[in-house]
Amino acid sequence: MRNIKLTIEYDGKCYSGFQSQNNALGIQEVIERAISSVTCERVKLISSGRTDKGVHALAQVANFHTSSNIPVENFEKAINRKLPDDIKIKEAEEVDPNFHARFSAKKKRYRYVIYNGKLERPLYRNYSYHIIKKIDVEKIRDCLPYFLGTHDFKTFMGPKTKFKDTIRTIYSIDIEENGEFIEFIIVGNNFLRHMVRIMVGTFIFVGIGKIKVEEVPEIIQGKKRKLAGITARPEGLFLEKVYYD
Amino acid sequence: MRNIKLTIEYDGKCYSGFQSQNNALGIQEVIERAISSVTCERVKLISSGRTDKGVHALAQVANFHTSSNIPVENFEKAINRKLPDDIKIKEAEEVDPNFHARFSAKKKRYRYVIYNGKLERPLYRNYSYHIIKKIDVEKIRDCLPYFLGTHDFKTFMGPKTKFKDTIRTIYSIDIEENGEFIEFIIVGNNFLRHMVRIMVGTFIFVGIGKIKVEEVPEIIQGKKRKLAGITARPEGLFLEKVYYD
Repeated sequence: MRNIKLTIEYDGKCYSGFQSQNNALGIQEVIERAISSVTCERVKLISSGRTDKGVHALAQVANFHTSSNIPVENFEKAINRKLPDDIKIKEAEEVDPNFHARFSAKKKRYRYVIYNGKLERPLYRNYSYHIIKKIDVEKIRDCLPYFLGTHDFKTFMGPKTKFKDTIRTIYSIDIEENGEFIEFIIVGNNFLRHMVRIMVGTFIFVGIGKIKVEEVPEIIQGKKRKLAGITARPEGLFLEKVYYD
Repeated sequence: MRNIKLTIEYDGKCYSGFQSQNNALGIQEVIERAISSVTCERVKLISSGRTDKGVHALAQVANFHTSSNIPVENFEKAINRKLPDDIKIKEAEEVDPNFHARFSAKKKRYRYVIYNGKLERPLYRNYSYHIIKKIDVEKIRDCLPYFLGTHDFKTFMGPKTKFKDTIRTIYSIDIEENGEFIEFIIVGNNFLRHMVRIMVGTFIFVGIGKIKVEEVPEIIQGKKRKLAGITARPEGLFLEKVYYD
């Protein structure tokens, strides 16, 4: 069986997330159907990880196995013809049989976009989280070192998750400010469910003064979800890159 | 009667354009209903001009007359509560009774966004026009001086229009290049139906070599639609500013 690696961009607005839910279409199912209609096989797509309902991806990575003899350079166009406008393959590559989009992933980079203006912005509503209250970015910068490195991130884990090992490593958190937009770029080895969104919700609370910078170490060490900030809305979140060896 | 000026942002994707069409909802109608539900009056909205189906606005301007005694500073929030997420009032001001959003307008600025990359980009599909063939921006720069100033722009007028006077003035055309995105910023005193989109379609033809730079003066002087390039797609177009005295 050949092993095909796909790099995928999608607008998460109209889907239940990467995985299908009751009564809602998942991105995975849409892509599997598109591949099946090209290869005439039942296909199982393995992704680097799920994304939540409404979350976007600039470069999600997934792989599938196939007996088809279609040349790899034809997969991208053939699958894209079967996909809707809001999900597209950016690259298809033939990879080692052992490549596994989830288990082989070494790091992931997420971007989270906050719009911190007073006015409502229809053109950005699906691609940013609108926080009206003025965010003090310098306060957030002061608390970032506490998150860097290897910690138990149990505080930042969403409900209904089965992870027993909640130790994760954050390699970097960068902040870009563009006018009224504040963007967080977070690189880590792996992320718990909702982890980026709860981290960003905590940054927001620090930035609007609901959490003090000096309280952040206790919040991390406390390992209780209720200590952290809100879960920032999904539409501001973009899976930007998955790193492999 | 008081005269209220509104500045409006909208995502044009789901509408028939500013004006209602058979079986399709217009942005004007949606805003009029929202205002009516606030003022309890029948309201007629006067815009700076229509935008086509799918075209966006960062700052469309419109005005309406009202007998309501609601303080002007409350209009923005009150109307926004009645509007959908893809249309929002950015500002409401009480203006001179003679102010007319169309007749008082002195200049307009449009932005047109082209995505000139090879890959399909779901996240930009509603906010740019995808041209795969490589565009030579320097060739387009060479042809811009021919468009500047006062000319008969009949060549660049769409079908089904009643304009008898097709003389218009273009004050400036700027180009911004951001990675694979090419953006045109066009300021003029007034625009014919489809004029920006046909001008941009002509720029695209110059940039991909279908029209030579030295042919452009004849195209403008020829006053025939068929001489120009395509009508660039609506989703790349943004009404960015309307200028008043």
